[in-house]
Amino acid sequence: MSEQPDLARTLYSDHAGGATDAHVHLSDRAFLDAICEFERALADAAEATGHITPEAAEAARTAIDDYSCDVAAIGSASAAGGNPTIPMVAELKAATRDAAGIHVGATSQDAIDTALVLCTRRAVAALDDELRDVEKLLNDLARTHRDTPVMGRTLGQQALPTTFGVIAAGWLEGVHAPADQLRRTAAALPVQYAGATGNLAATHPRGIEIHDRLAADLGLAERPLVWHTNRQPLVAVGLAAAQLAGAVRKIAGDITASSATEIAELSEASPGGSSSMPHKANPAAAVACDGYARRTPGLAATLLDALDCRWQRGTGSWHAEWQTLRDLLAATASAVSRIHASLDGLRVHTDTMASRVSEPTTGHAGDITDITLEGIDDE
Amino acid sequence: MSEQPDLARTLYSDHAGGATDAHVHLSDRAFLDAICEFERALADAAEATGHITPEAAEAARTAIDDYSCDVAAIGSASAAGGNPTIPMVAELKAATRDAAGIHVGATSQDAIDTALVLCTRRAVAALDDELRDVEKLLNDLARTHRDTPVMGRTLGQQALPTTFGVIAAGWLEGVHAPADQLRRTAAALPVQYAGATGNLAATHPRGIEIHDRLAADLGLAERPLVWHTNRQPLVAVGLAAAQLAGAVRKIAGDITASSATEIAELSEASPGGSSSMPHKANPAAAVACDGYARRTPGLAATLLDALDCRWQRGTGSWHAEWQTLRDLLAATASAVSRIHASLDGLRVHTDTMASRVSEPTTGHAGDITDITLEGIDDE
Amino acid sequence: MSEQPDLARTLYSDHAGGATDAHVHLSDRAFLDAICEFERALADAAEATGHITPEAAEAARTAIDDYSCDVAAIGSASAAGGNPTIPMVAELKAATRDAAGIHVGATSQDAIDTALVLCTRRAVAALDDELRDVEKLLNDLARTHRDTPVMGRTLGQQALPTTFGVIAAGWLEGVHAPADQLRRTAAALPVQYAGATGNLAATHPRGIEIHDRLAADLGLAERPLVWHTNRQPLVAVGLAAAQLAGAVRKIAGDITASSATEIAELSEASPGGSSSMPHKANPAAAVACDGYARRTPGLAATLLDALDCRWQRGTGSWHAEWQTLRDLLAATASAVSRIHASLDGLRVHTDTMASRVSEPTTGHAGDITDITLEGIDDE
Amino acid sequence: MSEQPDLARTLYSDHAGGATDAHVHLSDRAFLDAICEFERALADAAEATGHITPEAAEAARTAIDDYSCDVAAIGSASAAGGNPTIPMVAELKAATRDAAGIHVGATSQDAIDTALVLCTRRAVAALDDELRDVEKLLNDLARTHRDTPVMGRTLGQQALPTTFGVIAAGWLEGVHAPADQLRRTAAALPVQYAGATGNLAATHPRGIEIHDRLAADLGLAERPLVWHTNRQPLVAVGLAAAQLAGAVRKIAGDITASSATEIAELSEASPGGSSSMPHKANPAAAVACDGYARRTPGLAATLLDALDCRWQRGTGSWHAEWQTLRDLLAATASAVSRIHASLDGLRVHTDTMASRVSEPTTGHAGDITDITLEGIDDE
Repeated sequence: MSEQPDLARTLYSDHAGGATDAHVHLSDRAFLDAICEFERALADAAEATGHITPEAAEAARTAIDDYSCDVAAIGSASAAGGNPTIPMVAELKAATRDAAGIHVGATSQDAIDTALVLCTRRAVAALDDELRDVEKLLNDLARTHRDTPVMGRTLGQQALPTTFGVIAAGWLEGVHAPADQLRRTAAALPVQYAGATGNLAATHPRGIEIHDRLAADLGLAERPLVWHTNRQPLVAVGLAAAQLAGAVRKIAGDITASSATEIAELSEASPGGSSSMPHKANPAAAVACDGYARRTPGLAATLLDALDCRWQRGTGSWHAEWQTLRDLLAATASAVSRIHASLDGLRVHTDTMASRVSEPTTGHAGDITDITLEGIDDE
Repeated sequence: MSEQPDLARTLYSDHAGGATDAHVHLSDRAFLDAICEFERALADAAEATGHITPEAAEAARTAIDDYSCDVAAIGSASAAGGNPTIPMVAELKAATRDAAGIHVGATSQDAIDTALVLCTRRAVAALDDELRDVEKLLNDLARTHRDTPVMGRTLGQQALPTTFGVIAAGWLEGVHAPADQLRRTAAALPVQYAGATGNLAATHPRGIEIHDRLAADLGLAERPLVWHTNRQPLVAVGLAAAQLAGAVRKIAGDITASSATEIAELSEASPGGSSSMPHKANPAAAVACDGYARRTPGLAATLLDALDCRWQRGTGSWHAEWQTLRDLLAATASAVSRIHASLDGLRVHTDTMASRVSEPTTGHAGDITDITLEGIDDE
Repeated sequence: MSEQPDLARTLYSDHAGGATDAHVHLSDRAFLDAICEFERALADAAEATGHITPEAAEAARTAIDDYSCDVAAIGSASAAGGNPTIPMVAELKAATRDAAGIHVGATSQDAIDTALVLCTRRAVAALDDELRDVEKLLNDLARTHRDTPVMGRTLGQQALPTTFGVIAAGWLEGVHAPADQLRRTAAALPVQYAGATGNLAATHPRGIEIHDRLAADLGLAERPLVWHTNRQPLVAVGLAAAQLAGAVRKIAGDITASSATEIAELSEASPGGSSSMPHKANPAAAVACDGYARRTPGLAATLLDALDCRWQRGTGSWHAEWQTLRDLLAATASAVSRIHASLDGLRVHTDTMASRVSEPTTGHAGDITDITLEGIDDE
Repeated sequence: MSEQPDLARTLYSDHAGGATDAHVHLSDRAFLDAICEFERALADAAEATGHITPEAAEAARTAIDDYSCDVAAIGSASAAGGNPTIPMVAELKAATRDAAGIHVGATSQDAIDTALVLCTRRAVAALDDELRDVEKLLNDLARTHRDTPVMGRTLGQQALPTTFGVIAAGWLEGVHAPADQLRRTAAALPVQYAGATGNLAATHPRGIEIHDRLAADLGLAERPLVWHTNRQPLVAVGLAAAQLAGAVRKIAGDITASSATEIAELSEASPGGSSSMPHKANPAAAVACDGYARRTPGLAATLLDALDCRWQRGTGSWHAEWQTLRDLLAATASAVSRIHASLDGLRVHTDTMASRVSEPTTGHAGDITDITLEGIDDE
């Protein structure tokens, strides 16, 4: 254990993002624990279909419940075979009195993919809790400032008057679509249980029944029936996260720009300080939001590249997913947490806004605000 | 005109991809023509709502119908203002006898975004025609080879027997989901008509009615009502295209690998030659498919980055979209065309496959093939 | 020919970028012409080493000089084999009275890689001419405004006073390093001539001598002796271009931000207009610069991915390079051209700058300006 | 401390890569410790120039030496201001009896950038030790197999005979150039010490002297004098790492492909097993190498995007660097460690290779091997 903190490279970043409710589900420990969770549910499902004896299942459950994995040690042991399931299954089989109940008819990828799915769904659920608060704050801003005049700006230049409400409604609409997509793609994530080359040969003819029970037990979708080399389900979640990160980054950028000393139309409730300039009031949460969100397009590109699997197993593409998807979700969650902090209590300097607007005929903007908010409510 | 062919940098690539049905909708000319199409439909809509006179609308239509833009000249003239609408509208206004019917209440981005949407929808429709053929070929392969034994391979190594049918069914399933997503996101693309800062101020109180008529006339969605700086609708199409490109790349890679001299389980019907080795039979279509598809993750990352718009207009992010989205769709269309060529008449060397399988008990793979195909049919 | 302009997708973009001196070397026509140039120089080199007869060489030169390729037709003909050399060499061999002088001992990749190198070097040279003007403008700005007080800004907030000179010197330093790297990597680009599997077997024992003569004739480096699947030389150029694009994007962003209505410390000499708001004075060149530059990180990622070649030829990775590298260089050249337009005559509103500085003790900034400029001069 | 292991998301990956010599310098702890190292050296330099008293410097050194930071706590405290220097400096100032010796004339970015440079240089040095072993193994393979006949393969097809020596020499050449670039760019990394807005105002007129002493003390370059918003030095290192990762990925892919059951020309000395198929002998190290290396293009794209800083500080772009650069270096180091494991004892099945070659006239390949190796030796 002693070496672990010395290698950790995400602690600072995760804590600096504020809320870590999503991140705890994305840790190495959560990932490896979810492999055990797969194995336990598999023993249950195999028992229920009569593929293994109750005694074998009970032995497996006991071994799994008693098992405590050392993340660093499993990592080191994984170097030989290239994935964590191999040493974990070996340790579980060594620890049980009946190895028949461990890893029944499964291949390493079954355990890892299902574990990644479980971690992803939990992280998305945690992220979603915070996201709903963000959406509520944006909704409130739009309603409150439905008729608050402000200069619209294009290419950095003052253009024509608009209202801050229609701007906030646009922020909300930008967040709403990918948030919805993220929920739907996470909810659609399937179990993985297909055996060595993806055809459930080892558990034939009970394979499909075990698969379906496993899906039901774990609360996961049943189809695709095998997706070892069809990574679309996970990629879809990752891309939705990156779209969401882009949506909150847009808000963060606007808040940062509108907080500029000379513009001063917005300011964060708890602005950040400086190590050298006590007078500064930085939009620190918005800036940090941008910092997290800006990492997501490159990570999304890696996920898209990882669609390129070969034959019945990705040769590196699959292995690249484990870190990339978790980092992408963590960065998105931190970006959402930071925009939450930025929006929470955001000060809207309506006098400053109004002082730049000579003719605030903004009824049209109010109408658009209403229609936009109604459109989102109707979904 | 003489300078245009000298600068063209996509002719080789588009033609080398085979079908160019999608690409014609993505050209600079198609893009600028679609700006005119927006302006013409806008004159109609503004007339229908009584916002402009029938005479102004007729004058606009005449000017637009008589207008022929020189792509290179518009490009050069755009350098001053940063977008093509400015010189095009100036030319149209100069050419008409009543400028009131041109660009009614619109901003440059209204015309450009709607034009990009029109081009995108048409390109996706053309691509979809080819895609349906690809899906049919994959479906046929899966059915024909439901019980054809072949060695499954993981990490390059022979693993356990499976059938070529379940492999082809997996290819199909990988294509099916992003194909569906591409259709849905393209169908959801909205018109853009919101005026200078996105609140339809210039055409108040008829703005929303003009917007809705314009959407109906052009066959586009009505919501979001303004999305100048909410680029999710276009990004969603681009990401679906990249997912599709990744799905066909996976097939292309498998065909290339299984066509290797020593494996020889698949071969293209019309393999490519070599400039120096007449004996070679290269899986040229599959290789080219990979070449096109491999360009899409980076382009998708650029689109995701372009979500970062500032205030009421992207400052560079918007401008980067025009080329990136069209290139991404063109690369995807070429990848689909090349996998089509690779799959069309693909030779499946069942004897070679069978020679490596000692115990072809593959009933389970047949079952999974059936379930997979039924799942796709049911949608 | 008629179909070509309809598919062109880069004309608008290239012309809208202003200068197209680099772009003409990156067109499909220039690329295919450079393949002919390779073949002609190869005939010369093969003759000079005595590997082919003077008659065969002369026949080759005549056929090549008389050859005019149709880009679209070559593209279409390439679909079969996956690269343009195959149909071009076939046409040249059919046109000559002695095929022995065409494509002597070469493989398709020899011709294509050398052509891409020739195009790249010429485009970089053209870009470099413009870049030197940009560097001079930046140098002048730094010297002129060595002591011009301005508020430094961090995270959008006024921080402490500095001078505009030290800011401009920093812009220059950011440009200088990648500009230098771009020159060096372009100058190091080697000829490619290694034959079918990269060992010059077909021209043994004269292969290396032909290679060296070919390099000398074309003014290219001689080493690596074969780099069919070692793409570092081209990737290095592409990455340097992306770094340069990032450097000018930084300047463009600063100009756009400092041109904001409320800040108004900088403005372009020829600001852009709006299709709907005549009063606007947009930093159009800076915004367009950002639009071009922003496309380069994703293209650079594709180039890095294309390092993944298989055995003695990239299977798709190589094919993806042709478009990506040229697009990356074109986008960079346009970004440089646009920052040139933005900087040329840039108005520095020193009074506005000064009005925000209460205590302009900026001698230290002047010292740093001097040291920075001297450091660059010394290289 | 208890929460830290639960959030760690890199332990598995780093340990699974084998050697972690580079990774220990990239951890959060190493990063924060290097901030302290900067502060300590700054106190020394400020004392040496007479800018602070020996007493203040001694007090600072004592406080820093006694300081033990809690990574998670500093992360959480950083949320307010957006960077770790702010709470660390606050804690150090609170702990010392004379705050004048802490953070003398510095801004947060001075400490963070210098810390990132120190971590980067150390990680590159550790990586380089392993890299030299890899280069030696490749050199040995090339020499040993200078004349070992093997079929060259292009597009997956057997093409013409070559030797394994020339292939290995090409692998070496692909690694050598970016390895050299990585060494040079790391060696060129400068100290960052420029004060709040980058002009050393707070320590004028001793600022430049402090800067130079600090650089000398820490063994870092002195120029650029300020690079708060000129990120080229760090980007150059990151890009060189990504190029190196691409070079080893090429080797890994070749080893994986040549280890395929039907080809069987190469195999790893310690192949990996399977959780379900005991008979398998997977090229696990090569596959894992690909998995790490494949993550680098997307990370490199993020670094390139982070060149886009605003005014005198990046607004999110800078913050995105800290994680991205460290992850990129860690992934590269793991990829190098995995290719080391793959190459160490690599079995070259010369009989199998020879059995496919009918006419092994490979003297030319031997010549090229010699020239390639000599070219590398000469550098």
